[in-house]
Amino acid sequence: MRILIPGGDGYLGWPTALYLSQRGHEIAVLDNLSRRKWDEELETSSLTPIHSLEERIAAWGKFSGTHMPYFLGDVTDYAFLSSIVADFRPEAIIHFAEQRSAPFSMIDRQHAVATQVNNVIGTLNILFAIKEYRQDCHLVKLGTMGEYGTPNIDIEEGFLEVHHNGRRDVVPFPKQPGSFYHLSKVHDSHNIMFCCRTWGIRATDLNQGVVYGAVTDETVTDETLINRFDYDDVFGTALNRFCVEAAIEHPITVYGKGGQTRGFIDLRDTVRCVELACNNPPKPGEYRVFNQFTEQFSVMELAQVVRRAAATMGWDASVQHIPDPRVEQEEHYYNAKHSKLQDLGLTPHLLSQSTLERILGLAVRYRERVDRWVLMPRVDWRVSRNDRGHHIPARKSERVEASAAQNQSASLHSQFFSR
Amino acid sequence: MRILIPGGDGYLGWPTALYLSQRGHEIAVLDNLSRRKWDEELETSSLTPIHSLEERIAAWGKFSGTHMPYFLGDVTDYAFLSSIVADFRPEAIIHFAEQRSAPFSMIDRQHAVATQVNNVIGTLNILFAIKEYRQDCHLVKLGTMGEYGTPNIDIEEGFLEVHHNGRRDVVPFPKQPGSFYHLSKVHDSHNIMFCCRTWGIRATDLNQGVVYGAVTDETVTDETLINRFDYDDVFGTALNRFCVEAAIEHPITVYGKGGQTRGFIDLRDTVRCVELACNNPPKPGEYRVFNQFTEQFSVMELAQVVRRAAATMGWDASVQHIPDPRVEQEEHYYNAKHSKLQDLGLTPHLLSQSTLERILGLAVRYRERVDRWVLMPRVDWRVSRNDRGHHIPARKSERVEASAAQNQSASLHSQFFSR
Repeated sequence: MRILIPGGDGYLGWPTALYLSQRGHEIAVLDNLSRRKWDEELETSSLTPIHSLEERIAAWGKFSGTHMPYFLGDVTDYAFLSSIVADFRPEAIIHFAEQRSAPFSMIDRQHAVATQVNNVIGTLNILFAIKEYRQDCHLVKLGTMGEYGTPNIDIEEGFLEVHHNGRRDVVPFPKQPGSFYHLSKVHDSHNIMFCCRTWGIRATDLNQGVVYGAVTDETVTDETLINRFDYDDVFGTALNRFCVEAAIEHPITVYGKGGQTRGFIDLRDTVRCVELACNNPPKPGEYRVFNQFTEQFSVMELAQVVRRAAATMGWDASVQHIPDPRVEQEEHYYNAKHSKLQDLGLTPHLLSQSTLERILGLAVRYRERVDRWVLMPRVDWRVSRNDRGHHIPARKSERVEASAAQNQSASLHSQFFSR
Repeated sequence: MRILIPGGDGYLGWPTALYLSQRGHEIAVLDNLSRRKWDEELETSSLTPIHSLEERIAAWGKFSGTHMPYFLGDVTDYAFLSSIVADFRPEAIIHFAEQRSAPFSMIDRQHAVATQVNNVIGTLNILFAIKEYRQDCHLVKLGTMGEYGTPNIDIEEGFLEVHHNGRRDVVPFPKQPGSFYHLSKVHDSHNIMFCCRTWGIRATDLNQGVVYGAVTDETVTDETLINRFDYDDVFGTALNRFCVEAAIEHPITVYGKGGQTRGFIDLRDTVRCVELACNNPPKPGEYRVFNQFTEQFSVMELAQVVRRAAATMGWDASVQHIPDPRVEQEEHYYNAKHSKLQDLGLTPHLLSQSTLERILGLAVRYRERVDRWVLMPRVDWRVSRNDRGHHIPARKSERVEASAAQNQSASLHSQFFSR
């Protein structure tokens, strides 16, 4: 199958490209390298020393004998995007080319606007390019479980059967997202659903849980193919960050009570789920939603499993509750369905001691690269930001100044700096 | 009350500004005049000869003795918007500054993107300006009943009580909008709801039905204050367009079967509803939705009432079914609740013979200004458009050429041109 992967240089896009290439699909990567630029802006970097896209592609060609073309540019640039769709003629587009961090979108107005414009317009452009040049192309779109929020009812896969005043309908599951990033994915979902209904486009919306892990069978074949692994406050996700904290003997940072419960998935299952979606396309006009995760955990449960796994490796990791920088329920009901991908053939990698040891091992291997400054949250959902100054102190020297200025306050920052 | 009205030069914004000014509120208008520019682009114009914003404001000052400041600029320009919010210090912002035509948003990719960027980013900017400068300011936002689509269950006002698998919750009413414009309003609703919950902003989302009529007590006090009245395929709405068609002895154009049922509201009730929302603000942090319409009609019912009203004035208006340019159900269940504004004191102007005669009278008065070329739909939801050419023939000469080119096809255009 000919597959175009916008965002193919990122944490999920890159291993997906390799996985599908290895299975004989004809892959092209499209990326604007913005994820690498955001690391520079935020003074963070991948725990793992990733290579340039050019080097990665060359290494994969050498290892696999496969030429994987890549295109440097932006999905919000329609002339660029549509020319690639017209020329490459993909049968599926796996769309990872979105800003995917909730804290990033909450930094200030500019980051909120940049996130929604990039994600919403990028997806609109892909939909128009499919309509214009490849009507039959299957859009596989990365959504997020965070679109649903934490309702007091079971979360279904995309749609909900409602009985109301003696009548019945099946309607889109109501969305209650918790950041400008999560909102952008909800906007995407509505736009895609409309285009399927109106134009007959076929799409799969993968409402993915929090991903953990770093490696797949492909990314370990050569050091140059190593995947990105984020542990910082803005792009790092819970389990990955906890493992890094344990590995450097930093307390495991739990936001608030830690009762926040979410769906989680191993990176190796992510790439498999995407393959299952591609191999089983929906009918023309069908908008389909899969909840792409394999297990639910509360943040506190995750902290405890990391702590226990670290203990078996000889480290005594502690758990520290810090004020939740997000506006979210710290204890709530959560029961999300996730059977559709298993019905298609997914055999989950559940969170095991060996998986945890592998992530902890990676963290130990690269512990010298860890920057402790970026473990604690720098973005607060409630704090007023404005256009007159950046919220995130851009340089470490500024952070020290900010620390001094905030010493009297009980803010997250002062808690961080007073440690 | 000090009230800022972005979009105060438009069909609803202008009479709202006058109405609230007349009642002693301190009003400032903010507008980028884009509605007037879109008329130029689409070769359409208001049936009524509207005056420039400068002339309107001067005439209102002369009539009322009230100085109403106005600011020319764009809500997507945050520096401009926020300086006005900071200086004028509004207690309420009534936000009309959105692209509000479904067909406009469906012309092609550029119009879809322009609509979503203008509407979503404009609203985000207003939310950020309130947070930064006027935390207590009440956002009164024009939404649309079209956000709900046509579900097979009763439509509630913003939220739905759901019982599912033995559990209960009250969730945002699921949205199934039918154009990129309607989608932009759904995106707004989600963004606003989030900002209320996260930042404690207070907002009223007025999910308005289709507005008819042109005049209020204020707009008729001086010819210079006359309100805009659209009858064209892109910005004209059903009842208003039907009256113009009847007045020029053009068949009343019903899209498809005409079983499409919607909520409708008299312009005089719109301004009153907005006042009721302002006078009864929600609590800080509350996101409130009112369904702002007074009666439901199917399109066919509307065509018949216009036909009967025209008959009493001596005209024999016919009804013509044309292929529906939209993708929508032409027959469906529809029962939308709309009690909250009446609970606050709205006494509706129901659609009466005298109201119809007034609109028909206006159409007759300005019948020489009617351009028959813009009555039939030029935008088709299904037709493939692309970035290599405009979909809407920009000039009448081009339309004639297009007509010749499409003579063999059964398209809407050829139907139109072969009449």
